[in-house]
Amino acid sequence: MALRGERVTLAHGGGGRAMRDLIEEIFTSAFAPPGMEDQARLMTDALREPGARLAFTTDGFVVTPLEFPGGDIGKLAICGTVNDLAVGGAKPLWLSAAFVIEEGTEFALLRRIVATMAHEAEAAGVRIVTGDTKVVERGACDGVFITTSGIGVIPASRDMAASHVRAGDVAIVNGVLGDHGATILAARGDLALSSAIESDCAALGHLMEAALTAAPQARAARDLTRGGLASALNEIAEEAGCGIVIEEDALPLRAEVVGMCEILGLDPLYLANEGRLVLFAPEEQAEAALAAMQALPEGKGAAIIGRAVADHAGQVRMRTAFGGTRIVDMLVGEQLPRIC
Amino acid sequence: MALRGERVTLAHGGGGRAMRDLIEEIFTSAFAPPGMEDQARLMTDALREPGARLAFTTDGFVVTPLEFPGGDIGKLAICGTVNDLAVGGAKPLWLSAAFVIEEGTEFALLRRIVATMAHEAEAAGVRIVTGDTKVVERGACDGVFITTSGIGVIPASRDMAASHVRAGDVAIVNGVLGDHGATILAARGDLALSSAIESDCAALGHLMEAALTAAPQARAARDLTRGGLASALNEIAEEAGCGIVIEEDALPLRAEVVGMCEILGLDPLYLANEGRLVLFAPEEQAEAALAAMQALPEGKGAAIIGRAVADHAGQVRMRTAFGGTRIVDMLVGEQLPRIC
Repeated sequence: MALRGERVTLAHGGGGRAMRDLIEEIFTSAFAPPGMEDQARLMTDALREPGARLAFTTDGFVVTPLEFPGGDIGKLAICGTVNDLAVGGAKPLWLSAAFVIEEGTEFALLRRIVATMAHEAEAAGVRIVTGDTKVVERGACDGVFITTSGIGVIPASRDMAASHVRAGDVAIVNGVLGDHGATILAARGDLALSSAIESDCAALGHLMEAALTAAPQARAARDLTRGGLASALNEIAEEAGCGIVIEEDALPLRAEVVGMCEILGLDPLYLANEGRLVLFAPEEQAEAALAAMQALPEGKGAAIIGRAVADHAGQVRMRTAFGGTRIVDMLVGEQLPRIC
Repeated sequence: MALRGERVTLAHGGGGRAMRDLIEEIFTSAFAPPGMEDQARLMTDALREPGARLAFTTDGFVVTPLEFPGGDIGKLAICGTVNDLAVGGAKPLWLSAAFVIEEGTEFALLRRIVATMAHEAEAAGVRIVTGDTKVVERGACDGVFITTSGIGVIPASRDMAASHVRAGDVAIVNGVLGDHGATILAARGDLALSSAIESDCAALGHLMEAALTAAPQARAARDLTRGGLASALNEIAEEAGCGIVIEEDALPLRAEVVGMCEILGLDPLYLANEGRLVLFAPEEQAEAALAAMQALPEGKGAAIIGRAVADHAGQVRMRTAFGGTRIVDMLVGEQLPRIC
């Protein structure tokens, strides 16, 4: 134990002995291979298969507060990148993690975040194989920012893309909407809301594998993060060149989230999620995909919410509970900064 | 042109239309493939060769000021990650770029940074294939932070590692030391130093390829970043389990950098570089490696600076110009925060 004191100092970012102590005692000791290097060297037979492709993605995390009911920034950082890979049909394999740490951050907080990351990575079946730390002076960043990048392998048999969605395809989400956004809102405290809601943050790699085994012709999936379900559906409608209709009655919504949105003038369709996705499957495989999702904890609230249609190409519409229809537009502006 | 105003607002990070405008008009338009997605899908025949390995690395950049003589944060972000891949013997191929942007940042500054990145990536022969942007409120980060991750391919014939260095191997650096650190010091202005020095920031992929063609048995290379030459040599000595001796007279040092260090009580051996590396090659291939480096612009100041020895395992020593010997220890603490 060479780390002294309780907090990160600028010396821990300087490239010398103090930095090495920080990296070894907090990061590589948690992420295992003790030989974690500047450069990871990796291979998998799955990549050598004819037609297999490598999937590569990156995401920055700046959430505030750093810890919240149901998770922390470390859990977000692992799940967010695993999900980016999984929704494209890739099997997530390897992650990198780059930290920007504010001088004065407590080692104890870093250890908790890193422990969460190690735990989530193991549960998701991915390895954190390389990383970086930078320390900035007090006030130059707000606590801790994490950027994770991920590599996965897409088997030759899979070719998922929003542009493959066609009229008649069924849209399935894997659980109630908006818990993550509502949790962060409540956790900030400045709205004087108290709530028993927890973030939905979860890694969806296993869920996607199960859904694609059950519905091998699934066309596309998107994780519902910033901008919520509404933004993801709008992007899919635009890329697919078809319309999408969702049924208000079919949307899995928690009464508490709906109530919070009513008080604050928000729309749960735009609230952020971190463990939710929408999957489009051909009608004949939709029930199988739904059942496969519902069989897993992270999909037990799964529901069919609507379908792609030939009309109003590029537009998302919702049939309301009262029998009307309204346009669900892309989010304009922002609902909530630093949600992830 | 849907971007309005001159500065980034929180809405540009919200996941909706404003974010898409920012990404399309500033980022993907510069990085080409207009279809840059959340998830890049990639393949190269080089990965399918028996014995080939994938190299994966990540680096965060928090340099201040964002623009300095000889470069900017964007140039650092590309070169730093290219160099991390190259010194391991990998051919750099694909990069991701994740931005954390402070509310109020000028679009014009972002455009300059992104233009530099596109230019450097092209020169280095790599593609920026995926990315992310987050916007944080004023005061929550200092300007712009960038995290780049990189993927390269290590041919089966190459196996470079610090642990392969053995007594008798020759150490070569590719140019004068410390220009980047000295430039950032001067650019901060608070030291009332003026200087004509420019950052050495450069991508070294082509230089490494040339050196390894000339010296295929080269054992190891390290880029000299935070902690400078001294820290890199100490790491190599420790991993290789041998000693290293460098000759003060042989070190390529610029008089202006030495002078600045004398005024400030710094040691140029610990100053940061962003376009410098040290390569260890067996004696019989050292001259060929040196000549190959010197033939390129980024290696024209290359010099043999010392060698690995069987004595004082794990320790770096310098024979001084006056005939004495001193220990060159690993950097303790930090010389200069936010140098990269």
